Amino acid sequence: MNTIIDRYESEVRGYCRDFSATFKSASGAWLTDTDGKAYLDFLAGAGALNYGHNPESLKKPLLEYIASDGVSHTLDLYSDAKARFLETFHELVLAPRGLEYKVQFPGPTGTNAVEAALKLARKVTGRTNVVYFTNAFHGMTVGSLAVTGNSGKRAGAAQPLVNSTPMPFDGYLGEGVDSLDYFERALDDGGSGLDKPAAVITETVQAEGGVNVASNEWLKRLEALCRRHDILLIVDDIQTGCGRTGRFFSFEEAGIVPDLVMLSKSLSGYGLPFSVLLIRPRIDAWSPGEHNGTFRGNNLAFVTATAALERFWRDDDLTNTVNRKGTLVEERLAAIAKRHPSLRASTRGRGFIRGLACDAPGIAGDISAACFERGLVMETAGIDDQVLKFLAPLTIDDADLERGLAIVEESAAEVAVRLDENRNAA
Amino acid sequence: MNTIIDRYESEVRGYCRDFSATFKSASGAWLTDTDGKAYLDFLAGAGALNYGHNPESLKKPLLEYIASDGVSHTLDLYSDAKARFLETFHELVLAPRGLEYKVQFPGPTGTNAVEAALKLARKVTGRTNVVYFTNAFHGMTVGSLAVTGNSGKRAGAAQPLVNSTPMPFDGYLGEGVDSLDYFERALDDGGSGLDKPAAVITETVQAEGGVNVASNEWLKRLEALCRRHDILLIVDDIQTGCGRTGRFFSFEEAGIVPDLVMLSKSLSGYGLPFSVLLIRPRIDAWSPGEHNGTFRGNNLAFVTATAALERFWRDDDLTNTVNRKGTLVEERLAAIAKRHPSLRASTRGRGFIRGLACDAPGIAGDISAACFERGLVMETAGIDDQVLKFLAPLTIDDADLERGLAIVEESAAEVAVRLDENRNAA
Amino acid sequence: MNTIIDRYESEVRGYCRDFSATFKSASGAWLTDTDGKAYLDFLAGAGALNYGHNPESLKKPLLEYIASDGVSHTLDLYSDAKARFLETFHELVLAPRGLEYKVQFPGPTGTNAVEAALKLARKVTGRTNVVYFTNAFHGMTVGSLAVTGNSGKRAGAAQPLVNSTPMPFDGYLGEGVDSLDYFERALDDGGSGLDKPAAVITETVQAEGGVNVASNEWLKRLEALCRRHDILLIVDDIQTGCGRTGRFFSFEEAGIVPDLVMLSKSLSGYGLPFSVLLIRPRIDAWSPGEHNGTFRGNNLAFVTATAALERFWRDDDLTNTVNRKGTLVEERLAAIAKRHPSLRASTRGRGFIRGLACDAPGIAGDISAACFERGLVMETAGIDDQVLKFLAPLTIDDADLERGLAIVEESAAEVAVRLDENRNAA
Amino acid sequence: MNTIIDRYESEVRGYCRDFSATFKSASGAWLTDTDGKAYLDFLAGAGALNYGHNPESLKKPLLEYIASDGVSHTLDLYSDAKARFLETFHELVLAPRGLEYKVQFPGPTGTNAVEAALKLARKVTGRTNVVYFTNAFHGMTVGSLAVTGNSGKRAGAAQPLVNSTPMPFDGYLGEGVDSLDYFERALDDGGSGLDKPAAVITETVQAEGGVNVASNEWLKRLEALCRRHDILLIVDDIQTGCGRTGRFFSFEEAGIVPDLVMLSKSLSGYGLPFSVLLIRPRIDAWSPGEHNGTFRGNNLAFVTATAALERFWRDDDLTNTVNRKGTLVEERLAAIAKRHPSLRASTRGRGFIRGLACDAPGIAGDISAACFERGLVMETAGIDDQVLKFLAPLTIDDADLERGLAIVEESAAEVAVRLDENRNAA
Repeated sequence: MNTIIDRYESEVRGYCRDFSATFKSASGAWLTDTDGKAYLDFLAGAGALNYGHNPESLKKPLLEYIASDGVSHTLDLYSDAKARFLETFHELVLAPRGLEYKVQFPGPTGTNAVEAALKLARKVTGRTNVVYFTNAFHGMTVGSLAVTGNSGKRAGAAQPLVNSTPMPFDGYLGEGVDSLDYFERALDDGGSGLDKPAAVITETVQAEGGVNVASNEWLKRLEALCRRHDILLIVDDIQTGCGRTGRFFSFEEAGIVPDLVMLSKSLSGYGLPFSVLLIRPRIDAWSPGEHNGTFRGNNLAFVTATAALERFWRDDDLTNTVNRKGTLVEERLAAIAKRHPSLRASTRGRGFIRGLACDAPGIAGDISAACFERGLVMETAGIDDQVLKFLAPLTIDDADLERGLAIVEESAAEVAVRLDENRNAA
Repeated sequence: MNTIIDRYESEVRGYCRDFSATFKSASGAWLTDTDGKAYLDFLAGAGALNYGHNPESLKKPLLEYIASDGVSHTLDLYSDAKARFLETFHELVLAPRGLEYKVQFPGPTGTNAVEAALKLARKVTGRTNVVYFTNAFHGMTVGSLAVTGNSGKRAGAAQPLVNSTPMPFDGYLGEGVDSLDYFERALDDGGSGLDKPAAVITETVQAEGGVNVASNEWLKRLEALCRRHDILLIVDDIQTGCGRTGRFFSFEEAGIVPDLVMLSKSLSGYGLPFSVLLIRPRIDAWSPGEHNGTFRGNNLAFVTATAALERFWRDDDLTNTVNRKGTLVEERLAAIAKRHPSLRASTRGRGFIRGLACDAPGIAGDISAACFERGLVMETAGIDDQVLKFLAPLTIDDADLERGLAIVEESAAEVAVRLDENRNAA
Repeated sequence: MNTIIDRYESEVRGYCRDFSATFKSASGAWLTDTDGKAYLDFLAGAGALNYGHNPESLKKPLLEYIASDGVSHTLDLYSDAKARFLETFHELVLAPRGLEYKVQFPGPTGTNAVEAALKLARKVTGRTNVVYFTNAFHGMTVGSLAVTGNSGKRAGAAQPLVNSTPMPFDGYLGEGVDSLDYFERALDDGGSGLDKPAAVITETVQAEGGVNVASNEWLKRLEALCRRHDILLIVDDIQTGCGRTGRFFSFEEAGIVPDLVMLSKSLSGYGLPFSVLLIRPRIDAWSPGEHNGTFRGNNLAFVTATAALERFWRDDDLTNTVNRKGTLVEERLAAIAKRHPSLRASTRGRGFIRGLACDAPGIAGDISAACFERGLVMETAGIDDQVLKFLAPLTIDDADLERGLAIVEESAAEVAVRLDENRNAA
Repeated sequence: MNTIIDRYESEVRGYCRDFSATFKSASGAWLTDTDGKAYLDFLAGAGALNYGHNPESLKKPLLEYIASDGVSHTLDLYSDAKARFLETFHELVLAPRGLEYKVQFPGPTGTNAVEAALKLARKVTGRTNVVYFTNAFHGMTVGSLAVTGNSGKRAGAAQPLVNSTPMPFDGYLGEGVDSLDYFERALDDGGSGLDKPAAVITETVQAEGGVNVASNEWLKRLEALCRRHDILLIVDDIQTGCGRTGRFFSFEEAGIVPDLVMLSKSLSGYGLPFSVLLIRPRIDAWSPGEHNGTFRGNNLAFVTATAALERFWRDDDLTNTVNRKGTLVEERLAAIAKRHPSLRASTRGRGFIRGLACDAPGIAGDISAACFERGLVMETAGIDDQVLKFLAPLTIDDADLERGLAIVEESAAEVAVRLDENRNAA
């Protein structure tokens, strides 16, 4: 199978170079390849499978919908499935949190939502600049790339990326320096050369950027800064939303209310392409059809997304579970770091997005490879792939979690031993 | 149902303002709303449903795949379903046509593919400018918008759209003027102020732009011009591919071979978000992961797309049918134009994308509204919505086609009578 | 002397590569080099010396001003010399022509004025795009380069030049095609992809671009088009103003009134750096100091510019002379073209800007070189240096004009003979 | 006179709104208006008159050159006056300092040189981004504006300013924070979102930005950072060069050697428009004529610039004088700050560019106005005009300097008294 894909697919393919199995079926926290070999999944579709693979409670309504000839594709026509999704999203997500947002279906993937948010922010404010943060990741289309930190991805645009300015993320300038000091000074000073932005776009935990966590204080100060200068605050919750950090939205804990929020990845709950942009009603300034697209009405995703909300967000169980198990994962990773000084490792993260940052090139990748040999899929993140990234399904059971963590521990130990041997040999 | 949607969805929603039913199920050429009322569909998901709604031959493998816990979401990991799609696409589409293309999965929707194509063209050539054509439509993300003609959509970016230059499309300068004369002169003249482009992007039939057809001669001359100046030729076959104009690719008839081709919309065959970029092997210059995205591995779409190719593209039957029925549609539309001079109408199109262009504001929209009252969904296109656009499923049977055309005729007659009455009254 | 310059000056130096004498003094139409050799000057500082070198009537007040410690440099403070210039310019240039313009001193050279004009046009209209024409030349700073046609100069920016769109100049699309048809169509059509421009910038005779003359009808239609679409019309009269085409402004003959006009080059009359931007009062929307610069108050230039207006523009004598002698030059050039078919030459121009366009590479340059050997400085223009460009001082006397034209004739004959010999040898 | 100017000149005029005299003649440190009233000049043409007005040693050769019909305007032809300037510049400025630079004449004013430097830096490196600093000032053309900090000036472009990124200047982040920490971190981190720049452009003392002084250590670290990352270092010495800070170049004291240096303002020594770009030979990558312009050959400026070098830079006298008197000025300004706490003033500067920064809006302007009433011209700087800026001619004699400083003291006292009264009244 791989041969066919290697022959016909573009050189751009990436993950398959690290995880060379050909996957065929999947269930819960497990993937199975064409040879029948099973793999535990701590990658979870890079955050698109928070509820695991093919959860029964979603599969059933999905099958029923298809079998009953439910309409599949509706552009932005009215559809029954869309209405149910909107109603449920309002009832189970927005209303209980006291949030008022209009919902835009900007296209099926995260970058569609990011582009829509940036367009709307510029339209509403009449300004063109947007501030983003070091090591941010927001997508591969030109508008989203312009607010993404990764230099390799940026170079892919092969044209200057304009109308955006980077600022240091929380912690970027080291201990004891509040990285927002510079941003605040630049906003207050008419001579700073920083063109007043339409918006600031941020993640609360930089996922692709290496599991960098913004503190609640930093987020609150950022929100206050935006309010004082009449700048819109955009939170990209594509990877960190839908419970990944515990609560439904990752920004709830900080008590901030962004003007624009993007959700995607786990929103459909079944890995189906689906994305929304949440818009404060007062800035819902679109003209009809001003932003459009073919796959804004993916009804299969409406159906599974509705089922996912019904199943997982009627109560706080999932949030509590994530918080509990997340602490466990943190402890286990911290223990690894302590046990193997040669890894030069430290931990970071919130909820069920956790990182083991290894302060030397290649180490995290080596652990990831050792995990895969043991039947665990777990990727790396960060500009130098220096962070081993834990992103298991939120619904993983205790036994599987334990099994996976054990593999991580064994793999880390193996790499540490090798490092020590090499060091002694040298 | 509409009330819920009107309350919670952003003002950006468009189609539902013209076609106010809430759709629930669908089959073949028919949509059914929540009240059980059936509508004949001459919109077909704006070209995303060439094989009609929920075709049985695709539904079956889709249900089986889901029921068997086939993996749904795989990023760009190897998957069995992807391998099968690539193999089938090569066997049934590329090889028989003597085409050699690498396949990129750039994300689930058309604009992802357009952005990937533009990035790659700029990377390969080291040039930043891209030439596009008047009334072109390529998508809503910033890169794609920059090569889109519609001024309203462009304004939505709320920032200058750069690194692109418009040129007149075939026919734009009127009868007797070959619109490529200016482009050729500008390329040959170092003083023209036209920065040598990395690529030219074009449709063969401008769908959203008003069903403007490029002649085979014009396309051939364009290809020759690109070759002579070492400029890449990009064909956006998102709406016109997958048989819409008769053959699988819309450019086959002209005998040209683009360097980059985008397919999406009807590619999955089931309305599922899916998009590919076809790349001539010599310019497949991506670094691994240089362009990525969450929903590049939509396995449900792989499954239905493979089934669609198996079902519809093993032989020429569909092409022959489209050609035959397309001629019929053209004749019927031409008859309407002739019968009602007050509509100031003329026809345009190829295969199963046809337009009745009404040379006065509002007329096409009035006919569309009259059709909807009679149970037919049929949209308008063009910058002033001046073109009634026929886009029925390719698989529509003769009776339904006849029924729909009869509705169009009645509706056109009704509008014409009204126009005549108003004119006499004035 | 050349050795010193070749050693210390940047490789960017240009003219000195074609005309290798080291000039020391000059008077009227004559230049003298360090060896005492005299050269007749048909280059005239590329149009900066319309009144010849060091005209007595300007030299005297200049010497007196300096000797009396007249203030030299005043930023944009009030100065006596500036007031006199403004008064004289109003009395002798604007008032008699019924023109009302505010005068901005944007900096000492043409491109400063072009940049100021573009900034103001964008500010006033709130639009960013500016339309310019094929083969236009407006200056080397980034804003001006973006509206310049020459691809080699544009490449010098080494960044994409944005917010500008080229359109075909008069005659660009060949006989019988009005090049404004495309521009008009694109403005009228919301789907053209042409972002509505803040302004159109044009020359009436493209000087650097190869002495391409816009007809009066074309200019009138352009003005009407701008008015109808509320677009500002900018005329760059830097090389063609100050009597070069006969009247003071080159656009007078067409009867148009631009919204913004740039003058420089011959404005000081003595080759001193000086530039003005003329602004229709209703669009003089600058905030104080919004555009500034060190050398906006070049009082020596104020003094000589005032003297030049007094000496040359109190009556129509200069205009009449230019018209009379310009016709003579045209006839002589046309005769050369007729006499030597091997030059494949034709003539173009107005007043005292004339071109002998030679339709094969290198010919115009060869004639220029042959002229220089005979003691005549006369440059080439056009993207391929294909046009021998006549730009003698307007004040040249009949004998010198005759002498220069005779040299051109001899040089053209020499090149023609060589061409014929080569052809026969081949 | 003012009436004429107010009627005919654009609203953009600035300085004349603060200093309302109409100046007619000038000598040394003195200006005389049309009423015969004399003003001491602590503005010195914003740094363009370092040697005072109309210095005798320059006036004489200027008059002789003009009287002898020395050629005035030569584009970039060889001229005797240019050769003499280049030779003298090399002998007296470059060679003694061990500097090797090619000299480009990019046009007559500072922004021409800045634009040329940016173009060349981008061309040589193939990168488009340029880093500039908070409160930088480099000129009003679009390329220079993009690297200027002042938001009001930037807004004048009325289009997004692109391909540039601001970084904090020395001291911008407060005591104890080395502002280069962020820049260094961003360069070292591939995820920072800072596109690797072609060049860094800086002043050593930000003149318009409020007399902000970069320390030698900061400049050295900046140079080292540029070298390590293969980034070109551009120093804008337009206002601070030609002895303003003591030595000829302002960067000599720090011991750095920039790759590109711009000089203008006082270079001609007589207030004549003149500008050079100094280029390290290895990056003199221009093609002939790739950057051109009408007034690159201002021979009157060549003559006075040569005379200025001969007169002032054969020895260290001027440097020593500036250092000695500069210290005196600093002491006197510091005493004012100490004496009048209500001014909330502090001092800053080097050599003969000094600032009295008043930490409340309007105070510096009030002192400037009070000075003007007493016959002293002295401007303010900084984004809020919060800095009273000392910029007297370097050649001012002790008596005039004393007289001027006394006026500043009286004026400051007057304003301080008023402030105290208001405060007591409140």
